[in-house]
Amino acid sequence: MAVLVTGGAGFVGLNVVQSLLEREHDVVLFDAGKLPPGAGRAFEAHRSKLSIEAGSVLVGESVDAVFRRHAIQRVIHAAAITSGPGREAKDPSSIVEVNLRGTINILDTARKHNVQRIVYIGSGAAYGESLYRLPRLYEETAAVPTSLYSITKHAAERMCMRLRDLWNIDVVCVRLGTVIGPWERDTGVRDNFGTHSQLASLAVTGKTAILTDREIQRDWVYARDVADALIALTEASTLRHTLYNVTCGVKWEDPIVAWCKALKAHYPAFQYRTAAHTHEANIWYTDRDRGLMDIGRLMQDTRFRSRYLMDEAYADYLEWMQRTPECFDGLMS
Amino acid sequence: MAVLVTGGAGFVGLNVVQSLLEREHDVVLFDAGKLPPGAGRAFEAHRSKLSIEAGSVLVGESVDAVFRRHAIQRVIHAAAITSGPGREAKDPSSIVEVNLRGTINILDTARKHNVQRIVYIGSGAAYGESLYRLPRLYEETAAVPTSLYSITKHAAERMCMRLRDLWNIDVVCVRLGTVIGPWERDTGVRDNFGTHSQLASLAVTGKTAILTDREIQRDWVYARDVADALIALTEASTLRHTLYNVTCGVKWEDPIVAWCKALKAHYPAFQYRTAAHTHEANIWYTDRDRGLMDIGRLMQDTRFRSRYLMDEAYADYLEWMQRTPECFDGLMS
Repeated sequence: MAVLVTGGAGFVGLNVVQSLLEREHDVVLFDAGKLPPGAGRAFEAHRSKLSIEAGSVLVGESVDAVFRRHAIQRVIHAAAITSGPGREAKDPSSIVEVNLRGTINILDTARKHNVQRIVYIGSGAAYGESLYRLPRLYEETAAVPTSLYSITKHAAERMCMRLRDLWNIDVVCVRLGTVIGPWERDTGVRDNFGTHSQLASLAVTGKTAILTDREIQRDWVYARDVADALIALTEASTLRHTLYNVTCGVKWEDPIVAWCKALKAHYPAFQYRTAAHTHEANIWYTDRDRGLMDIGRLMQDTRFRSRYLMDEAYADYLEWMQRTPECFDGLMS
Repeated sequence: MAVLVTGGAGFVGLNVVQSLLEREHDVVLFDAGKLPPGAGRAFEAHRSKLSIEAGSVLVGESVDAVFRRHAIQRVIHAAAITSGPGREAKDPSSIVEVNLRGTINILDTARKHNVQRIVYIGSGAAYGESLYRLPRLYEETAAVPTSLYSITKHAAERMCMRLRDLWNIDVVCVRLGTVIGPWERDTGVRDNFGTHSQLASLAVTGKTAILTDREIQRDWVYARDVADALIALTEASTLRHTLYNVTCGVKWEDPIVAWCKALKAHYPAFQYRTAAHTHEANIWYTDRDRGLMDIGRLMQDTRFRSRYLMDEAYADYLEWMQRTPECFDGLMS
């Protein structure tokens, strides 16, 4: 059985591909963009299990050709535009096209090829304003999406559930917490570059990070945990729900200062300090304080348990950084 | 000043066009479909104020050409696919395209031509499941959309508000109650044919209506009231909100039986009775019992007051039917 990962060259996609390969799955990586430097080396040991297909989820024939060339039984649909305000003002149509029509294309083609299950990779952003109003978010919590990213991610989820019923297909949707870890980079479709990656990029080049005077609360989750959870949902024989929060389930204590300390231990030239004035900071957060997403449902219905709480995550992340020094090349000037 | 009405040949669109003309506005009617039989006669007295432009909201050049040809200052964006389950299963992409990308096209072109205000015609369907769970719906009530129609109408509204902020344009969104009245017909993009129109169609052809054993609660609103409210929102100098429920604000008592009685008085050959078994009914509702949408906000911020509660609505509707006998031709077999 092969698993198709759309957006497989993206941040979450690459982590999923890597974990699938480590579990001996045949993987078809589908993406409109290129693999990052270092990915070839990382996947070398599993090269016979990995097929790389270039193409856009918007081109029905390309998608169909991939399904015809491979015996795909499960799909993890991660292809999306992770838009920020600049792109939303400049090109809103493309965000709708990729995040919504692209999702319909994948579901429709998967259906025609009798795929067993599709896992749609949504985002905690789908909760929208509820993230900032409530201390804890459950899958039933009302969503109030405001950005085009959150609006399209929310709508795509709802569409998945509607088409699940209309087409009698097996689709399950997830909402990811704030993912950190290997392979985050500028892919051209990811506008909100994570705080941890910003710091890592400064550390490897021996620069100084100037932090904001307080940390933003987010439900950080390590990319390998996310991959574990997505694969658990992909492999589960039956699932009781169609929507699952996916995060580590635990609040991290002062994660940004802890990450600076961990980086400093490996990259001694790296410096960090707190900004005297807010405008001086050169590290930013992509959002405001958020409530935490509950993962009781995920833990109940799958065997997922977080393996990477903060310390384990940072140790693994640093190990990856040292193995993959080219990954932050040119990311921050 | 000219007002552009997209979807102007549709059910709500035609009522808006007619009311605008009666108020001496210059009107540009934009639609991909044709005007119904009878519309030419209805608009004859105002022909010099009305421009009819054929085209799709999906074709950027067509939309732009309309704005170049006319001095459009306000836009009422009613073009949409009102989809039912059959179309949603068969062609979900077109629903996303028209209802979302079409809306972006209209907003973007209106912005480039410095339009003063855009009124987006949304639907109470945007509330989704909340309609069936709550007795009363306020604009802040959480939405849980499930059908592709409700998902796209909800997402389009949210997009309007996001682009309002990003582009600094004046956009106001409305959610309509269940509209009844003149000009409802099969336009090819309206899958849910209203209960009142079904009965009217049987009445003019002297057939027998077999009703379900109980009426469905909906917040019925007469199309001319809807047009009044939309024009009030179009003309208001300032508005305090970006989203307004639009319905008559009052629950109608046994509206379907009352409509049958009113029809019977004008079309004596028409018969109606209640089905002995549910499956026998030849009149259907497009939905389940719904809570009522509150219009306190609309009444506070505009001078809108309903002129057509049930009896006035039925009298006007019947008068229109007699003036426009061709309108139900071929609608029900």
